[in-house]
This record gives sequence, structure tokens and C-alpha cells, in this order.
Amino acid sequence: MSASPALPEALAATAEAVAAYIDAAIAQSGAPGERLASAMRHGALAGGKRLRPFLVIESAALFGVPAAAAMPAAAALECIHCYSLVHDDLPAMDNDDLRRGQPTVHRAYDEATAILAGDGLLTLAFEILAREEAGPDAEVRIALVASLAHAAGVAGMIGGQMLDLAAEGRFASGRPLDLPAEEIIRLQAMKTGALLRQACEAGALVGRATPEERASLDRYARAVGRAFQIADDLLDVEGEADTVGKAVGKDAAAGKATLVGKLGVAGARAELARLVDEAEAALAGFGSAATLLKEAARFIAARRN
Amino acid sequence: MSASPALPEALAATAEAVAAYIDAAIAQSGAPGERLASAMRHGALAGGKRLRPFLVIESAALFGVPAAAAMPAAAALECIHCYSLVHDDLPAMDNDDLRRGQPTVHRAYDEATAILAGDGLLTLAFEILAREEAGPDAEVRIALVASLAHAAGVAGMIGGQMLDLAAEGRFASGRPLDLPAEEIIRLQAMKTGALLRQACEAGALVGRATPEERASLDRYARAVGRAFQIADDLLDVEGEADTVGKAVGKDAAAGKATLVGKLGVAGARAELARLVDEAEAALAGFGSAATLLKEAARFIAARRN
Repeated sequence: MSASPALPEALAATAEAVAAYIDAAIAQSGAPGERLASAMRHGALAGGKRLRPFLVIESAALFGVPAAAAMPAAAALECIHCYSLVHDDLPAMDNDDLRRGQPTVHRAYDEATAILAGDGLLTLAFEILAREEAGPDAEVRIALVASLAHAAGVAGMIGGQMLDLAAEGRFASGRPLDLPAEEIIRLQAMKTGALLRQACEAGALVGRATPEERASLDRYARAVGRAFQIADDLLDVEGEADTVGKAVGKDAAAGKATLVGKLGVAGARAELARLVDEAEAALAGFGSAATLLKEAARFIAARRN
Repeated sequence: MSASPALPEALAATAEAVAAYIDAAIAQSGAPGERLASAMRHGALAGGKRLRPFLVIESAALFGVPAAAAMPAAAALECIHCYSLVHDDLPAMDNDDLRRGQPTVHRAYDEATAILAGDGLLTLAFEILAREEAGPDAEVRIALVASLAHAAGVAGMIGGQMLDLAAEGRFASGRPLDLPAEEIIRLQAMKTGALLRQACEAGALVGRATPEERASLDRYARAVGRAFQIADDLLDVEGEADTVGKAVGKDAAAGKATLVGKLGVAGARAELARLVDEAEAALAGFGSAATLLKEAARFIAARRN
């Protein structure tokens, strides 16, 4: 057995492959004219670490599934993530002009096109999962649909975005809410955690994991999700805009409640280390096959952008 | 065998049942707090003829499928239709304040909530289709997902909305395009026709129709879709706002190209009659089981709101 490639190489290879897959899916989508497909590409292909597809593919690899066989599930999840960014950036939502150093979709095109491009990517995700190549049989494919719809829906990501807007005081007081730590954790578990968990669940579904294996992967994914968010909050406090690639200090400026605010920087760093240990421990049963996933947990905790 | 209920009664019964199903699905969706679920209800339960669910249920009934067994597919399609109205009404899209005589979702709530409520209804549609009750087996359910995603996606409804915005001159000249009749037909086949066709396809899938039966139903659905749009355009020209329940004369005011504009009112009425004949002829092979579907074609052509 050859040595596993280092994490950065593996991430880069996945990022390239998932972008190619989504690019082809958009090309074959039957979108009329150029503008809509072009806006969808702008929203889905402008870079990003592609962490979620990587987690799908590496989770599936634990069960001997080749990367190509897990790619549709990985690409579908990434389409969901990308649509959520397109809609999140809209003037009525976060009103962001830049994303990964480039104009957001509604800036590069217009708001109506951005709304439709987001809707298009959302819908394309389910079209991809319904393809025969997305799973070994119809049972697996419909389980992927159920899993992704639940994670992306109002009980998951969309619900988390709604809680986030409420926490910012958008609907009532006009002032940010001083949420207790457990409410912040719940909000983040929905807003960003749900899709990260779905990544590992999708890999387990494609790989026909046992319930015990699914539970282990889910423990890993929950820890990674929380680590991801704390790392993100730390970047907002400590990062430099040039390195992070987006505005920093936004949370504090918005008076937004974060775990870093509750725990302090040192406390947040300690929690981050604990979560990485938890993530690695959850995968103990998979032995060396899980090396890249464990590295990914450390990478996510230590990331600088 | 008892006589079939008259069309208005059957439509009303379906409308009530589909609203109850969607209401329960939103209640069970796991949406946090009250605002998001309430906005989704506002967008999905504020009335409407529920023609699409009716076509699903009556198409499935041709193959002996009880209404309850076709209801998930019917409700999923209606969720898609309703989300599209919520997003279509947004300020960046059609900027409508009223829908069915009530404030649109972004007026009753706010834009961010309307965007998320629309995303939530879109995602809920696929969550509903993934449930075991949505089809006799996983093969049928994943076929329903493929069919709905394709019809609702950029090759169907979303693509049609994009063409419609382009036809209004939103992206280039700023002036409405004088589209030829065949382009208007293509635009409308995507924007409104795709979901009406999906309704009949969903019924055929749930009912395990033969390819010939599916093709017959599709001929019916295509004709009904075109009739639906011409009737809509005629209402815009001839209707009274009080009866129609929304602003009339908007197309002419917007300089929008319609088939009524191309054919004239008399020509459009003749085309409407031809399409109803075509729809009825397509169902000849189903005999009296198709009575309600044939009545629906006539109803759609003659509707006054």
C-alpha cells in the first residue's frame, strides 16, 4: 500500500475534481442562455477549500469506496454550501460585496440573477443525487436525498441562518442578543455543523457503513464542526484581512455573541484542542485508514484562512 | 361505482388535503422558533387552486393509486410552486406587495425571512419525497426526485424565470424584447409548463405507468400547460382585478411579449379551444377514468381567476 498523500495535496486534488464535476453538471444542466449558468459557476467555482466534499470522499474511503464513486454526493453537498453563500451574501441578508476576494454573485451580476443562481444550485444538488452514479442503488440514493435535505433544511442550515439573523437583532430589538453559550453552540451546530455532519454521513451512506461506524463518524463530524466554528471566530478576532480573505472583526463590530467572546481567546484555544482530541478519538476504530481525516481535524483547528 | 364528484368539489377536497399535509410537514420540519415556520406557512398556505397537486392525484388515480398515496408527491410539487412565488415576489424580482389578496411574504415579514422561507420550502419538497410514504419503493421515490429537480431547476422553471427577466429587458437594453411566438412558447413551457408536466409525470411514476401511458399523460400535460398560460394572458388583458385577485394589465404596461399579443384575443381563444381538444384527445385511452382530468383542462382554459 502506498503512503497516503499529505493532506494539502489530497485537499487540492479533491478541490480540483469537485470543481470539475460541478462545472460539468452546470454545463449539462440545460440552463438557457449564458447568464444563469455563468452566475452559478461564479457562485460555485470561485475557489474555496472544498472541506465538505473532502470529508465525504475520505469518509467513503474508510469503506473502500473510490473517490469517483463518492463524488456525486460530495458535489451535491458542495452545491448546497455554495448556494447558501450566494443567498447569504445578498443585500437583504449579510450584504457582502466580496467573497474569497471576488465580487459576490449579486455584485458581479445582479440580485435577481443571484437569487435564481442560488435556487438553481440548490435544486441541482438534488438532481445530482438522483443520478444513478450517485450511489450503489436507489435505497442509498434516496437516503442521501433525505440526509442532505434534512441537513440543508430548516432543521439544519437554513434554521441556523434564521437563528443567526435573530441573534443579530434583525427581527425585534434591533440590538444583538446576548445568547448564552449553549444557544451559540446550538445555532452554530445548525448553521455550519449540519452540513459538515452531512458530509461524513454521506460518506457512510455511500460506503454502507454499519450503525456503529456511522455513529463513530458522526462523533468525529460533530467535534470537527464545533472546532471549525471556533477557529472561524478566532480568525475573526485575531486574523489579518489579507490572510483570511474577507473582512475581520465583523463579529465584534456587530456585537455578535461568539464562543470566543464567552470563553476568551485562551479558553477558546483550549476548547479547540479538546475538540481535536475528541475528533481523533472517535476514529480510533478505523486505524490508519483514518489518517487523513484526523489530519483534517487538526488542519481545520489550526487554519489561518 | 359511485359517480365522480364534480370538478369544483374534487378541487376543493384536494386543496384542503394538500394544505393540511404541507401544514403538518412544516410543523414537523424542525424549524427553530416561530418566525421561519410561520413565514413558510404564509407562503404555502394562503390559498390557491392547488391545480398541480390535483393533477398529480388525478394522474395517479388513473392507475388505481389512492389520493393519500399520491399526496407526498403532490405536496412536494406544491412546495416548489409556492417557494417560486415567494422568491418571485421579492423586490429584486417582480417586487409584488400582494399575492392572492394578502401581503407577500417579504411584506408580511421581511426580505431575509422571505429568502430563507423560500429556500426552506424548496428543500422541504425533497425531504418530503425522500420519505417512505412518498412512493411504493426507493426506485419510484428517487425517480420522483429526479423528475421534480429537473422540472424545477434551470432546465425548467428557474430557467424560464431567467428567460422571463431577460425578456423584460432586465439585463441588457432595459427595454422588453419583442420575442417571436416560438420563443414565448419556449419561455412559458419552462416557466409554468415544466411544473404542470411534472404533476402528471409524478402521478405516472407513483402509478407505475407504462411508457405509452406516460407519453399520453405528457401530451395532455403539455397542452394543459400551454392553455394555462394563454388563459393567464387573456385574464391579464380582459380580467377585472377584483375577480382575478391580482393586478391586471401588467403585461401590456410592461410591454411584455405574450401570445395574446401575437395572436390577438380571438386568435388566442381559438388556440385555447384547440389545446383543450388536444388535451382531451390525449387521454382517450383512459376512458371514463380520465373524466376529471378532461374537465380540469376545460376549467383551466375557461378560468376567470
